[in-house]
Amino acid sequence: MPESGNMGRMPTQFDPPSGTRDFLAAEFEQRERAFAVIRSVFASYGFEPLQTPAFERLDVLLGKYGDDGDKLVFKILRRGEHEVSGEADLALRYDLTVPLARVAAAYGSQLPSPYKRYAMGPVWRADRPGKGRYREFVQCDLDTLGSRSVLADAEALCAQHDALAGLGIEDFGIQLNSRRVLAGLLEVFGVAADLGPGVLITLDKLDKLSPAAVAAELEGRGLAAEKAGELVAVMTATDAVDRIRVALKPSEAGAAGLDEVDSVLSLVGPQVPAGRIAFTPRMVRGLSYYTGPIWELTAPGVPGSIGSGGRYDHLIEQLGGPDMPATGSSLGIERILSLLPDNAGTPHRRLDVAVTVIDAAYAPQSFGYASAARAAGLRGSVYLGTSGKLGRQLRWASDQGARWCLIYGSAEDDAGTVTVRDMDSGEQAAVPAGELGEYLAGLARLAAG
Amino acid sequence: MPESGNMGRMPTQFDPPSGTRDFLAAEFEQRERAFAVIRSVFASYGFEPLQTPAFERLDVLLGKYGDDGDKLVFKILRRGEHEVSGEADLALRYDLTVPLARVAAAYGSQLPSPYKRYAMGPVWRADRPGKGRYREFVQCDLDTLGSRSVLADAEALCAQHDALAGLGIEDFGIQLNSRRVLAGLLEVFGVAADLGPGVLITLDKLDKLSPAAVAAELEGRGLAAEKAGELVAVMTATDAVDRIRVALKPSEAGAAGLDEVDSVLSLVGPQVPAGRIAFTPRMVRGLSYYTGPIWELTAPGVPGSIGSGGRYDHLIEQLGGPDMPATGSSLGIERILSLLPDNAGTPHRRLDVAVTVIDAAYAPQSFGYASAARAAGLRGSVYLGTSGKLGRQLRWASDQGARWCLIYGSAEDDAGTVTVRDMDSGEQAAVPAGELGEYLAGLARLAAG
Repeated sequence: MPESGNMGRMPTQFDPPSGTRDFLAAEFEQRERAFAVIRSVFASYGFEPLQTPAFERLDVLLGKYGDDGDKLVFKILRRGEHEVSGEADLALRYDLTVPLARVAAAYGSQLPSPYKRYAMGPVWRADRPGKGRYREFVQCDLDTLGSRSVLADAEALCAQHDALAGLGIEDFGIQLNSRRVLAGLLEVFGVAADLGPGVLITLDKLDKLSPAAVAAELEGRGLAAEKAGELVAVMTATDAVDRIRVALKPSEAGAAGLDEVDSVLSLVGPQVPAGRIAFTPRMVRGLSYYTGPIWELTAPGVPGSIGSGGRYDHLIEQLGGPDMPATGSSLGIERILSLLPDNAGTPHRRLDVAVTVIDAAYAPQSFGYASAARAAGLRGSVYLGTSGKLGRQLRWASDQGARWCLIYGSAEDDAGTVTVRDMDSGEQAAVPAGELGEYLAGLARLAAG
Repeated sequence: MPESGNMGRMPTQFDPPSGTRDFLAAEFEQRERAFAVIRSVFASYGFEPLQTPAFERLDVLLGKYGDDGDKLVFKILRRGEHEVSGEADLALRYDLTVPLARVAAAYGSQLPSPYKRYAMGPVWRADRPGKGRYREFVQCDLDTLGSRSVLADAEALCAQHDALAGLGIEDFGIQLNSRRVLAGLLEVFGVAADLGPGVLITLDKLDKLSPAAVAAELEGRGLAAEKAGELVAVMTATDAVDRIRVALKPSEAGAAGLDEVDSVLSLVGPQVPAGRIAFTPRMVRGLSYYTGPIWELTAPGVPGSIGSGGRYDHLIEQLGGPDMPATGSSLGIERILSLLPDNAGTPHRRLDVAVTVIDAAYAPQSFGYASAARAAGLRGSVYLGTSGKLGRQLRWASDQGARWCLIYGSAEDDAGTVTVRDMDSGEQAAVPAGELGEYLAGLARLAAG
């Protein structure tokens, strides 16, 4: 089975558009299996699915993602007589949050309260394609609209955690913080309100840049050198958490933030293995819309995060929806899929039972035996090629990954039997035609067991 | 749960774009259940999934659907500096067949031979939206590339039949014909080659127009009045099938077509209930690309067909793919979904176990009990609202469709128990906290059984 993305092949006119992928059987099925696990975990928390159209009206999308985001939106040309205008009126969805805000506005009180929904589906961004970066990729979001409770934050985090665990991913960590902790820090360090957002953006670089470089950038943003140095020193100290807990005491926001963090830690504690989650004051999350707890999931060897989330109490309104509290989390599905074991080496099993057609005169019988195999719960089909040679047809059966091959020709017709060949051992059995259904039921039990 | 399509509501700025739908939980899940049945039937025949991107390069799509089709293609504006050109370079896929032809060309010998694939996913057409006609709708195709065998035709038809049966749809019929039968008819009635396609288009109207009207239209196309009358008389006779069998004998194409039809009938016979399939000489299928057996599935009360298929040996090449024989079938998913029983009346069960949070002090315990319910295989979650009143929280549990409600407050904390309330009977049990896991396992068996 060729890999999708056509790696190792010269690109041709038949490739999918740049940044998109064809998913052939093996990869499609591996992805679907992972999606099914995630859906099942989310449903176990009472989150319900939502599917919105691939495109939205252009005015619903534009202005929601900043100028840089707007440039990455795939816009759809008006149609008919309006096509010549060169204008767009629709656009492919850029994420799953703006459609959620629209749905919250459209269905309002018809939705359950709180509205706990998950969505998993493709989004489209006209980004420059690169390794692991696509123009069509799957997003997987889980959100609770209409609850201010920290239980909702903890639940969104736990569901995300369980989804990863359900996929068999064990080696990951969760960094937890709160926007209010950060607000408290800015307060106790006397950072002017207008400098706050910029200071947080710079502090977010502590995992990439040296403390000195971050301090210098803070100074460049207008922070006094002494303050910048102190702030970086506190954030990078080995006992940073303890020092920040002490420093935040005088700040109302800071104390509330610590309470939030502690509540989440206490709620998820029994469920998340010890050592997997840690209060991480220097974790900022780039996006400015968060208002409460924030978290990021990272795995060794994977750049960036494999998941993230947080409370965003005003975003739904900013995106055109009603004013309602909200919290949620998003799994970096494409990165997570790259963590799953690769099945490329194992042959793709298309059939359990392959049925030869050695002699066209007996094609109806072969067709019927394939049907009998399916009736027994096995995947079964007949040879559809032109060769009448048994060897060739057995090779086909083997290529299909079939475990058994049924052979029926004039010899079998004379004897009133069907030959059943075990494709692994090569052993053959002559099964009386009248007993084939029962025999196939036995094979089905073998295949299931 | 509101209906999608927002029927019965005034349209608002928050509606999905014209001709598209939001699928909220109940409808989404009903659709997914149906899709899962179909996928499972197709896989049982050894058909494998294929997923291609939502959009293709514009040149891959244009010119493949005729002028009328081209007008219905959603085109995507070029991006960045090229946006001002008002030109498109990509387009949303219009069907699943052109992408299949591209995939056949792109992956060639890396694909299994024959390549039996199914695809199920949205396509987009800028048609005028109407009752049951959408701009975003799901297509469901099954095709075998690379086999000339009539077994492949019969298999495509059987898989389609089994999918409908698997969905519980019993009341439908299959009309079977062959393009070669039609070619033979034109031959024995001496219809000039250049009139042939037009004559077939007119004959296809015999299920809508009167015989006289069809005969008149045939004359309008240049057929002699006598011939037109004879042709219509044969096609509409009560013994049409017998008369056509006799009439076709002198024609090589006609005889070959009858052989095809009889082969398909004989192959599917044991599997398709008697009376459900019939040789229907006047069934033409509008599309000109068919070359062999053709069929249509219809259900009483449903206008048009709920499925169709046929052999199209040169289409893949015409669509830009390699020259290879092909046969396949397509299910009219949106129409088929409309035949399924409507679950609108039954409440949507989001949770099995709802857990109250009467007292914030015991929220961690409640959160933990929800986790224990999930660990037992039940859907469980805590109350996320602000009311501390039991009655209000029980109403929430009931709205969730929960079968059981766990209550834990100071009384339970004192007694070391958890109150488990049966939401149907209202009966309550005091379960020792240490035995809750075992008790929940019992509820899980109840829920499963």
